[in-house]
Amino acid sequence: MFFKHIYEPGLAHASYLVGCQATGEAIVIDPKRDIQDYLTIAEQEKMKITKIAETHIHADFLSGSLELAKATGAQIFASDEGGAEWQYEFDHVGLKDGNTFMVGNLKFEVLHTPGHTPEHISFLLTDTPASNQPIMIFTGDFVFVGDVGRPDLLEKAAGYIGTKEAGAKQMFQSLKKFKALSDHIQVWPAHGAGSACGKALGAVPSSTVGYEKLVNWALGYDNEEEFVVALLEGQPEPPKYFAMMKKLNKSNRNVLYPVPETQPLSIEEFLVAKEKGYKIIDTRNKISFAGGHINGSINIQDNSAFSTWAGWLLSYEEPFILIAPSHRINQLRTALLRIGLDNISGYLPDIEILTNAGMELETLNQITADELHSNLDKFNILDVRNESERISARIKDSQFIFAGYIVENAFKIDNSKPVVVHCAGGDRSSIAASILQCMGYKNIINLTGGINAWISHGFDVEKGIELVEEVSTE
Amino acid sequence: MFFKHIYEPGLAHASYLVGCQATGEAIVIDPKRDIQDYLTIAEQEKMKITKIAETHIHADFLSGSLELAKATGAQIFASDEGGAEWQYEFDHVGLKDGNTFMVGNLKFEVLHTPGHTPEHISFLLTDTPASNQPIMIFTGDFVFVGDVGRPDLLEKAAGYIGTKEAGAKQMFQSLKKFKALSDHIQVWPAHGAGSACGKALGAVPSSTVGYEKLVNWALGYDNEEEFVVALLEGQPEPPKYFAMMKKLNKSNRNVLYPVPETQPLSIEEFLVAKEKGYKIIDTRNKISFAGGHINGSINIQDNSAFSTWAGWLLSYEEPFILIAPSHRINQLRTALLRIGLDNISGYLPDIEILTNAGMELETLNQITADELHSNLDKFNILDVRNESERISARIKDSQFIFAGYIVENAFKIDNSKPVVVHCAGGDRSSIAASILQCMGYKNIINLTGGINAWISHGFDVEKGIELVEEVSTE
Amino acid sequence: MFFKHIYEPGLAHASYLVGCQATGEAIVIDPKRDIQDYLTIAEQEKMKITKIAETHIHADFLSGSLELAKATGAQIFASDEGGAEWQYEFDHVGLKDGNTFMVGNLKFEVLHTPGHTPEHISFLLTDTPASNQPIMIFTGDFVFVGDVGRPDLLEKAAGYIGTKEAGAKQMFQSLKKFKALSDHIQVWPAHGAGSACGKALGAVPSSTVGYEKLVNWALGYDNEEEFVVALLEGQPEPPKYFAMMKKLNKSNRNVLYPVPETQPLSIEEFLVAKEKGYKIIDTRNKISFAGGHINGSINIQDNSAFSTWAGWLLSYEEPFILIAPSHRINQLRTALLRIGLDNISGYLPDIEILTNAGMELETLNQITADELHSNLDKFNILDVRNESERISARIKDSQFIFAGYIVENAFKIDNSKPVVVHCAGGDRSSIAASILQCMGYKNIINLTGGINAWISHGFDVEKGIELVEEVSTE
Amino acid sequence: MFFKHIYEPGLAHASYLVGCQATGEAIVIDPKRDIQDYLTIAEQEKMKITKIAETHIHADFLSGSLELAKATGAQIFASDEGGAEWQYEFDHVGLKDGNTFMVGNLKFEVLHTPGHTPEHISFLLTDTPASNQPIMIFTGDFVFVGDVGRPDLLEKAAGYIGTKEAGAKQMFQSLKKFKALSDHIQVWPAHGAGSACGKALGAVPSSTVGYEKLVNWALGYDNEEEFVVALLEGQPEPPKYFAMMKKLNKSNRNVLYPVPETQPLSIEEFLVAKEKGYKIIDTRNKISFAGGHINGSINIQDNSAFSTWAGWLLSYEEPFILIAPSHRINQLRTALLRIGLDNISGYLPDIEILTNAGMELETLNQITADELHSNLDKFNILDVRNESERISARIKDSQFIFAGYIVENAFKIDNSKPVVVHCAGGDRSSIAASILQCMGYKNIINLTGGINAWISHGFDVEKGIELVEEVSTE
Repeated sequence: MFFKHIYEPGLAHASYLVGCQATGEAIVIDPKRDIQDYLTIAEQEKMKITKIAETHIHADFLSGSLELAKATGAQIFASDEGGAEWQYEFDHVGLKDGNTFMVGNLKFEVLHTPGHTPEHISFLLTDTPASNQPIMIFTGDFVFVGDVGRPDLLEKAAGYIGTKEAGAKQMFQSLKKFKALSDHIQVWPAHGAGSACGKALGAVPSSTVGYEKLVNWALGYDNEEEFVVALLEGQPEPPKYFAMMKKLNKSNRNVLYPVPETQPLSIEEFLVAKEKGYKIIDTRNKISFAGGHINGSINIQDNSAFSTWAGWLLSYEEPFILIAPSHRINQLRTALLRIGLDNISGYLPDIEILTNAGMELETLNQITADELHSNLDKFNILDVRNESERISARIKDSQFIFAGYIVENAFKIDNSKPVVVHCAGGDRSSIAASILQCMGYKNIINLTGGINAWISHGFDVEKGIELVEEVSTE
Repeated sequence: MFFKHIYEPGLAHASYLVGCQATGEAIVIDPKRDIQDYLTIAEQEKMKITKIAETHIHADFLSGSLELAKATGAQIFASDEGGAEWQYEFDHVGLKDGNTFMVGNLKFEVLHTPGHTPEHISFLLTDTPASNQPIMIFTGDFVFVGDVGRPDLLEKAAGYIGTKEAGAKQMFQSLKKFKALSDHIQVWPAHGAGSACGKALGAVPSSTVGYEKLVNWALGYDNEEEFVVALLEGQPEPPKYFAMMKKLNKSNRNVLYPVPETQPLSIEEFLVAKEKGYKIIDTRNKISFAGGHINGSINIQDNSAFSTWAGWLLSYEEPFILIAPSHRINQLRTALLRIGLDNISGYLPDIEILTNAGMELETLNQITADELHSNLDKFNILDVRNESERISARIKDSQFIFAGYIVENAFKIDNSKPVVVHCAGGDRSSIAASILQCMGYKNIINLTGGINAWISHGFDVEKGIELVEEVSTE
Repeated sequence: MFFKHIYEPGLAHASYLVGCQATGEAIVIDPKRDIQDYLTIAEQEKMKITKIAETHIHADFLSGSLELAKATGAQIFASDEGGAEWQYEFDHVGLKDGNTFMVGNLKFEVLHTPGHTPEHISFLLTDTPASNQPIMIFTGDFVFVGDVGRPDLLEKAAGYIGTKEAGAKQMFQSLKKFKALSDHIQVWPAHGAGSACGKALGAVPSSTVGYEKLVNWALGYDNEEEFVVALLEGQPEPPKYFAMMKKLNKSNRNVLYPVPETQPLSIEEFLVAKEKGYKIIDTRNKISFAGGHINGSINIQDNSAFSTWAGWLLSYEEPFILIAPSHRINQLRTALLRIGLDNISGYLPDIEILTNAGMELETLNQITADELHSNLDKFNILDVRNESERISARIKDSQFIFAGYIVENAFKIDNSKPVVVHCAGGDRSSIAASILQCMGYKNIINLTGGINAWISHGFDVEKGIELVEEVSTE
Repeated sequence: MFFKHIYEPGLAHASYLVGCQATGEAIVIDPKRDIQDYLTIAEQEKMKITKIAETHIHADFLSGSLELAKATGAQIFASDEGGAEWQYEFDHVGLKDGNTFMVGNLKFEVLHTPGHTPEHISFLLTDTPASNQPIMIFTGDFVFVGDVGRPDLLEKAAGYIGTKEAGAKQMFQSLKKFKALSDHIQVWPAHGAGSACGKALGAVPSSTVGYEKLVNWALGYDNEEEFVVALLEGQPEPPKYFAMMKKLNKSNRNVLYPVPETQPLSIEEFLVAKEKGYKIIDTRNKISFAGGHINGSINIQDNSAFSTWAGWLLSYEEPFILIAPSHRINQLRTALLRIGLDNISGYLPDIEILTNAGMELETLNQITADELHSNLDKFNILDVRNESERISARIKDSQFIFAGYIVENAFKIDNSKPVVVHCAGGDRSSIAASILQCMGYKNIINLTGGINAWISHGFDVEKGIELVEEVSTE
């Protein structure tokens, strides 16, 4: 049996290529949309991908099943559980609890494990004929290393009101099935640390049933009600694009394969696109962005959080443009592809060609923690972190709007004085500040180093829950 | 806890970087000699490698511990078990059974697990304070997925006569310790499928204690004597370079870091080196080599078996030259580095510069299975595969000398007729035939497609054990 | 004034980007079809290509004027001289003798300089206002360094019978105009050494009017008739694709920009294409090809003559496939693009994937000069060089068919004995031998090192003109 | 004859590889220090570089003659003219006026052409036996396209007081020799537009004797005295490193070949180096630098002027560090190598690793032309352009110190108000401003877009010569 764990750190997403060496057949479980890795591995191992499996309708990435099926001719195996609303609309082999299917000599047994979503299934793999005992289970977003899948996404991200408690109860039942498995079975989930599909995922890629029984907080509950409360508590804010993923991942959407090359724009093309209102995403680092940027551009830096923030801030209907050097454009394009943001109209490799052509740039003023502390009365402070960070420590009298909701809530900002925007270290505040500048706000200032710098200078913070005004998430 | 499995397919070698995210400290277990991967991962994860651990004195690759220690300043942790002959001669923290050490919050417990080698230790890891139960064990060449480490290398490869039975008995005792561990514990060994350190390694990178108890053939024995017989039976021929690895891996050898660049040779330099008797390794594929090659060159193709065959055929004292295109030289250099073959004097990027300068090439004649079958009486046949392959199927009346021992045994070859050399598919026969040409043999012919092609044409083969004359391995 | 000479060695083709630094406008003269170089230079120099000029309807490469016009929006300036048959069929600004046009401050004066072709014009450039004296002349295929354009291509390559003498006479008149120019004027032609558009081109990229008057053989004649005889004598064989270039370069053909990526083929796709009769071009070196190749493939090596030989041997109507490593495919694709061979259906990166899948290869047997000399009576010898090479030295009793005409004349080959094919050094004989193998001939053998090796061994050759039977060029 | 013009735009430096195709020998004239281009061309053309020639002791780049001699074994041919002070101290074949030497069949005739320097020679090339008339002359820094070499560098850059008039007179005499050459001879100089070795060099790479007689301003004088005045007038400020080049280029200095790889620094290594006072050169663009930079770093942007400004600002004795991304480090290293700045101690690939580690950055405040114009009374203005630019247009009441002399003259700056630094477009002002920040000046502001932006807004400027206080150039 050949086994390969493929990990995409930007979305903390794990997928798997498992093959039968006797027959040369292979399956990919929960593929990402940039499918080249699977094709390359299969070629190296001289295997043919004949099946593709989905554990569930993913919320946080656009599955590459359709692209992989087009590229290889493989069949898609996916859940028919979960009821009418959760049925895949594209061609697939429907799976129900207890079904089995073979990939060469490898036996996959289907377990219906709802909770994260109603249709969620897991795959228990037995390496026949070498063994008649399962070797591993692919748990998707059911059981992670150290955590379980959150049941509240349908409600929070996709608007299915009232489903989160139902999901939590299903999860409780599904975990009973999990506990009944043998201790020695390896557990390979669809996500690792940092995923927004849970709240406490570990950084180790795999675990075992026995170890999770000992260590995973969610397996320690005997009481369903207590479990439901605990599970729903403290889940992070789901990015806005999750709603679109839920919709696209079950639909018979357009297949993008092969991926067309992204073209550089001439100054003229760039200016036309800007004029037409195309969104401009400046991917340079926050320091460079502060030094000078095009009026009307948003600063989503080229780092591991790029696709998530693009998912928060870009619309799926509107075209957009990147500012990024040529040697990075393919990686950025791929990061967007992974969440289905395909409307890229081109990129500008170098901002200096604009200044050389006489365009004046806008700067984003910065202030150090020291300067802010010495002049507190001259500024209003806007905290754009998330709620749990805010609870753990905040600057007194600062206003709170999470960066992901800044557009809808900007009107609440008190800009009677210059506004110092901060987050933990300066990344999200650069995003939020750039959005505010786009919206026409003047006197927006970024706190360099964020609240981390403030705290490291020993300046005072408040802690604990506060009464926050409702923030619009529409 | 951060965990990364690093796999080098050429030698089927697995190493591990494990880090404590709370403190930023990391350890590398059984590092390969090209250490850049570890440095890159540590940098990406913003971790500092502070410790390096060795499970045992490796036979099949040159450990990169000394290079990694030089590059990072980390301390080496290695076994002080096993007796006087198996003591590391370089600076290290000596470990004994029952010792523990910490990497940040991660607890590593030392288990003395002799059998493969006398000093062999394993590391049982507990992810404190998250858990007080071990999460995984690093077994080195003790327990593999589906196999255990062979105890006969010291005798076969390093000449310690009479040690293989003793080792097999130690292995039996060590396995008792292993069986006493909890089922849920993950097992991460130092080798995967294809390694010459065992005979039946699986292709899945990890297992669990519970699963190995169910499936691993070696854990099924209750009787020591039967186990010893079974373990020593059918072990593959150890490559010649293993003896040198045993020596170098415990010694305080020269540290090669950073690695100097390999330079292309001018025609003049090449000819001088050839004149002086430098070994010439032609890494082109066997088809190109057959079409024309420099007289006196050996054909070790640039594929995953490159370093192993270089280890069989190159001397550690003599300088050598590669024929390889510029865009491949770094990978080939690295493959050699991994087994300590550092005496590379340069490379020739293109054989055509020699023919353009008027040099005449030598060809290696080829024959198809069909042609051979129709003219069997005109040729002698030489089989250069290994013993187990020969037992499973062989061409009647063919002579048998394993490719790795061809130099010492060439005098036995019956070259009263032209000699058709074959292996399974044509790779090893190209090696052996090129060596015979180097030694001055004429009328050497390669069977294209090897015995595989013969069999696929439906031609007769013999099976089973045969009486073979002793082959010299000196 | 900005000036850049762009040289493409495969076709010995020179083109020019000349710009006015005062206005930022630039012109490209006689662009190649892979236009990226021009776009890159213009971008680096912050210039805008606003005009494109053609000196004449080229015979040896497909002009990139249409692609460059599409990419930049520039206008094409081309000759309206030469009569009805030589009128460009695409949108252009028509130029007549004596016309001038400006590129920024740079003045271009049109000289009608027929001879090579009836419509041929040259451009005399004055760098106003810095000077009122011309600085240089772009002569296209009129005057080269050390030679002049051949007037016989229309007749030989495009079938316009009886035009070569007329052309030679026009050339004599045009050269009078050239001689009237000032000595100091730089001469920048469209071709360098190795071009088939002349017979004696120098390797220096540029010259001056004065120097050519002193040194160029063609400027030494005062008598028209003697000049005509001398000019038509000893012109090399024009490659077959020249006829197609003449046709395409004046037509409003399809524009290929941007160029789509060439895809690797799977084994299955490759076999389907082979089955359908797609031409297979094996670009590996002749040594590798001799060692083993796919039955039915032609060996056009990946070297500077690649596009010319592809032009000799490929049809413009039929699809074809390359065998070439991935890291070379773009360069090869571009070489084909330059002569309009766009019907590439994909490529096979590695021939070993076929042998690994069980396909048997064909070899091309080789013989050394020594072996041939010792066994002359056992072989027929086929010389595939061109006529002038044959006149200078040939092996006695060898048969002569130029490699470019081998397909039409293969029936004349005496294959009563095994046929040893030779050229000068082995490249063209590998092409010819591979074609003969494709056509079903058996017992085709390649002379390694060609007649060069034969001569260097001191073996006898014949010299001088011989009576050759007519070779079909249809 | 093979001829190749090699142009390095950063220093506007032209060198030449000329080869005899009959014998395969080649010469390189005035090689740059990164010699790989020559080795590559020679290899491609299958030529052997056997000779190296120097036209004179260069002031603006470090000659690669010694490196090329080491790499190829070629002999160096250089001037023995000019007197005792101008004798090369390394092994060479000494040349005097009238000497000739051969490269294969190519004849090189030596002309002593002092003026730019006392020992300066030119090479008149005849392509024998094809012609007995010279085809081209290599003029070094004697005659450029449209200009002649400046005679004042020895005085200005190397401190030989009183030599500039003598040099100008020698130039007048040497030009007589030039005028005596035939019009048709090609002229290939050592520099193109932008070089500091003259004041009016054209952008066309070559010219002819006849054309220069018509167009070159310096060839229009019949009166020596007028010529001397005209020649010495308006020469640009020679960069400081010229003095060191004069010294190194004649000495038997250390040879750096092959060039060792430049290593990235860890944070710790960087901080140690900073602590020790290593110069830190931040090569990011001025926008990013303004947004945030390390205290104590100088902003020399990675563009074509990089090496010249490094030559102005770096010491040849002190170690330094670059801030530059990994994919640019080799090019930057090479740019420094070209002027002998070899003391690079490593580089920092990414400034964010410092901010992530908690380091606070310094910003460089910026002001637009508009804002400055509206608040003129609040700022002092510092112009750091050169004298000729200042004469053509300047902001009223601005202070003037050329960026290259800012260190020595900073004490004169009136910083009673915040100082707005400007140049033409913002590059040199970023350099100067960063130096002032390094020196501890506060309230330094950069004018974005420089005086170009000011002028394009239509704001007033003064023109003409002004009385400037003496600026120290020590």
